[in-house]
Amino acid sequence: MKDVQGERDSRNISIDRVGISDISWPIQVLDRENGTQETVADVSLSVLLLKDHRGTHMSRFIEVLAKQEKRVTLRNMEETLTALKERLNANEAHAEFNFPYFITKKAPVSGAKGRLRYDVSFRASLKENDFDLVTELIAPIQTLCPCSKEISEFGAHNQRAHAKIEVRMKEWMWIEELAEIADSCGSAPIYSILKREDEKAVTELAYANPRFVEDVVRELAIVFDKDIRVTWFRVSVTSHESIHNHDAFASVERSKV
Amino acid sequence: MKDVQGERDSRNISIDRVGISDISWPIQVLDRENGTQETVADVSLSVLLLKDHRGTHMSRFIEVLAKQEKRVTLRNMEETLTALKERLNANEAHAEFNFPYFITKKAPVSGAKGRLRYDVSFRASLKENDFDLVTELIAPIQTLCPCSKEISEFGAHNQRAHAKIEVRMKEWMWIEELAEIADSCGSAPIYSILKREDEKAVTELAYANPRFVEDVVRELAIVFDKDIRVTWFRVSVTSHESIHNHDAFASVERSKV
Amino acid sequence: MKDVQGERDSRNISIDRVGISDISWPIQVLDRENGTQETVADVSLSVLLLKDHRGTHMSRFIEVLAKQEKRVTLRNMEETLTALKERLNANEAHAEFNFPYFITKKAPVSGAKGRLRYDVSFRASLKENDFDLVTELIAPIQTLCPCSKEISEFGAHNQRAHAKIEVRMKEWMWIEELAEIADSCGSAPIYSILKREDEKAVTELAYANPRFVEDVVRELAIVFDKDIRVTWFRVSVTSHESIHNHDAFASVERSKV
Amino acid sequence: MKDVQGERDSRNISIDRVGISDISWPIQVLDRENGTQETVADVSLSVLLLKDHRGTHMSRFIEVLAKQEKRVTLRNMEETLTALKERLNANEAHAEFNFPYFITKKAPVSGAKGRLRYDVSFRASLKENDFDLVTELIAPIQTLCPCSKEISEFGAHNQRAHAKIEVRMKEWMWIEELAEIADSCGSAPIYSILKREDEKAVTELAYANPRFVEDVVRELAIVFDKDIRVTWFRVSVTSHESIHNHDAFASVERSKV
Repeated sequence: MKDVQGERDSRNISIDRVGISDISWPIQVLDRENGTQETVADVSLSVLLLKDHRGTHMSRFIEVLAKQEKRVTLRNMEETLTALKERLNANEAHAEFNFPYFITKKAPVSGAKGRLRYDVSFRASLKENDFDLVTELIAPIQTLCPCSKEISEFGAHNQRAHAKIEVRMKEWMWIEELAEIADSCGSAPIYSILKREDEKAVTELAYANPRFVEDVVRELAIVFDKDIRVTWFRVSVTSHESIHNHDAFASVERSKV
Repeated sequence: MKDVQGERDSRNISIDRVGISDISWPIQVLDRENGTQETVADVSLSVLLLKDHRGTHMSRFIEVLAKQEKRVTLRNMEETLTALKERLNANEAHAEFNFPYFITKKAPVSGAKGRLRYDVSFRASLKENDFDLVTELIAPIQTLCPCSKEISEFGAHNQRAHAKIEVRMKEWMWIEELAEIADSCGSAPIYSILKREDEKAVTELAYANPRFVEDVVRELAIVFDKDIRVTWFRVSVTSHESIHNHDAFASVERSKV
Repeated sequence: MKDVQGERDSRNISIDRVGISDISWPIQVLDRENGTQETVADVSLSVLLLKDHRGTHMSRFIEVLAKQEKRVTLRNMEETLTALKERLNANEAHAEFNFPYFITKKAPVSGAKGRLRYDVSFRASLKENDFDLVTELIAPIQTLCPCSKEISEFGAHNQRAHAKIEVRMKEWMWIEELAEIADSCGSAPIYSILKREDEKAVTELAYANPRFVEDVVRELAIVFDKDIRVTWFRVSVTSHESIHNHDAFASVERSKV
Repeated sequence: MKDVQGERDSRNISIDRVGISDISWPIQVLDRENGTQETVADVSLSVLLLKDHRGTHMSRFIEVLAKQEKRVTLRNMEETLTALKERLNANEAHAEFNFPYFITKKAPVSGAKGRLRYDVSFRASLKENDFDLVTELIAPIQTLCPCSKEISEFGAHNQRAHAKIEVRMKEWMWIEELAEIADSCGSAPIYSILKREDEKAVTELAYANPRFVEDVVRELAIVFDKDIRVTWFRVSVTSHESIHNHDAFASVERSKV
């Protein structure tokens, strides 16, 4: 059967990225408490296509994915890309895994335990032998408005917000550590289960700790600026304002190298 | 050219609904303040297909839609369906229009004006001569938790919530009236623009007016139960809890006929 | 601490459904080939609230959910609802679980194996002792247009489509069986991995087997009409037309009792 | 009333971007055929916040937006950013408008006219006096697989695809021109209305013109490489493969300066 993808191309244009996207796949990731965690990822895999080749072989991406599904971790992302490069005969390979990740948190007073969903991405590239990995965590947190608290006789508007942390690491950090940092920088953490005594504690904590998105993003920047395991970071906060139908956001990006 | 859709079908199965969906189209709707408002709708149009016919003629749905785009209103929904029935030779026709609708609201103290987005649906059916129309409004509102206020020494968690109002009317109601009802049933309304004096007013109003989703949905039910223009309603409230990463919701449906 | 939710309500309105929604939770479901499968669900849980009670206790829903996570199956859905009714002191309870489900399929010629994602929902209610369960599967399939094939000198437009199957069963059916029925009713099945010989086979199969959405939905209706394990069904097909930017759809609902 | 946002900040961290996002707003854009077109945009506006200032004044973003809503065009994007910089006392400002845009297209044989939805973004920045604008168009097109055509005895799988074109211009290009380029690079254009003679023409055109995503992206790159009005471009194609439940994609980015 003719290999149409394998034809020679004369248009003289290399393609930065060609591959598959929006594929859903069950994966296993590393979990600090339990060793591993099963989840479902939205995956994208691609390679550089040199100018002489008409097409890539799309089914091979799935073959590589199928082999890696039990080991989609920060630790073997480079191995996945090496496998892609080899199977596709490519000089560069890229992979992106986006998945929900669950951390069991204890309510602050009762200690009631419940799972909380975080959204995690691994975005990795391997160009020749140059490996790059960005790890992203989106964490739900609470923000309480300092202005509203200051000017109002009682109460203060507060809301669910999302902190997005993107980092390049030179030393290992657990997803759980990133989540703890997010929790420490908002007005209060968020939980899936809160008994009445916990709800009181969380309400009072947030009121005692008012933070604009500008405050949260600066607190996050301070932490990652100091953390020597991180060489680059971008932190952003999106607050789903309870008094508006739109969001307030702030972001800071810094490279330390 | 052969009319494959027009072939006789022997499978003996009539099809409840066949047509087009997920089509985006600019439309003009009625606006209480400004006469009309231009917006963009997600549209679905369908008909009943009798058991003898293999298929319907999909391009005719677009033709009917194109003719109605400047008049997608509560008042001419029946006319749209009559046109569909005739053009498609059908005994029943259905239409659904979902679109953003903007209402200019004044901030409570400064009077600063800003547009606020609502989401509206018209869902209409015409079976023989029996016309049915459900109008839906999704309105952003604020809820402040009565329990959190009661048990905490200061503050109370609050958040953006959405009230969904679905009604069958026997007399005209403006979209703006439905939005005003939503505003009156939450802890406080939501605005796109609030100056500092407004933020103070809204914060204090919400704190003075704590409401569970259960409270909001009951207040909505009381209003529509009394309003003689409405023959059926379903009201629901979804509160994007600021202390959780999930929502609280409540719904009530009542027919008055 | 005061139990605000437990207050007596005088508004005289019972609430059809009150609970939690849009909560993400890892669950384990039954898998015909492998015994069980780990996945992540979007969950909604609710109860009927009688008119005398101001509110429900939201944290208890999470407690019930946490206990059931390893056993979210068709077989124990009634048990989950019984637990909800008891824990919430309610006369009625409702649960909805929506989750991706993966089935490993073999390519038709090469036999290459790959996982394919389906979307499944369980929607269950328990009113007094009356248990109701609707199982829904959304399956990707291919449709090839009979009209386009008939009138064109070569080729025929085809596209990804989704078959949605909703059933009430009186006897057990595997999710895998519903998926096989969907595959048998389209122009051709869909796979995650196809080698060149498979791509040839699938292309030719679809061309030999042209189907309008009207055809697919009737084929589905015939199957479920005959299957004595099913007491009610609603089948619909949405085809993401490759020549348009909108979808064609058709749906049939039948009760056999 | 105290100006909390105006407080001095001692954390020594400037914030790259702070502002509002996910705000929906009706806007008017330029239309080659009709002068202007009303649509609804999802908007994000932000500024750089210097290290000495605790917060920005969020309500001012809405004030600037409200003044520009009738003139959101490529031509006045710089003016909008200048207004933002002045109103917010900022050295840098950023704006992003994402909106549906409708182009009326004529079916290739019958000449039947129908609107087709495109998705457009303007992403603009003004740093000191350095203005930058990226215009993005996402256009639905059709792709027909060259491999499937070559190896199959009859038929060839085809599907809806999306071409994304991002450009920096030094001379004006209409959105309509970008859409025409997208149409010229796929296997066939997409229409909202096609009569039977049109469906035949489009089916045969696609079959005569098979293109991988690799082919489409190269054709796009050739056009923009030659067009002297463009100084930078990134083109990508995502094809919703009809034989799979995932997408194939390819992208090329080139700077000409």
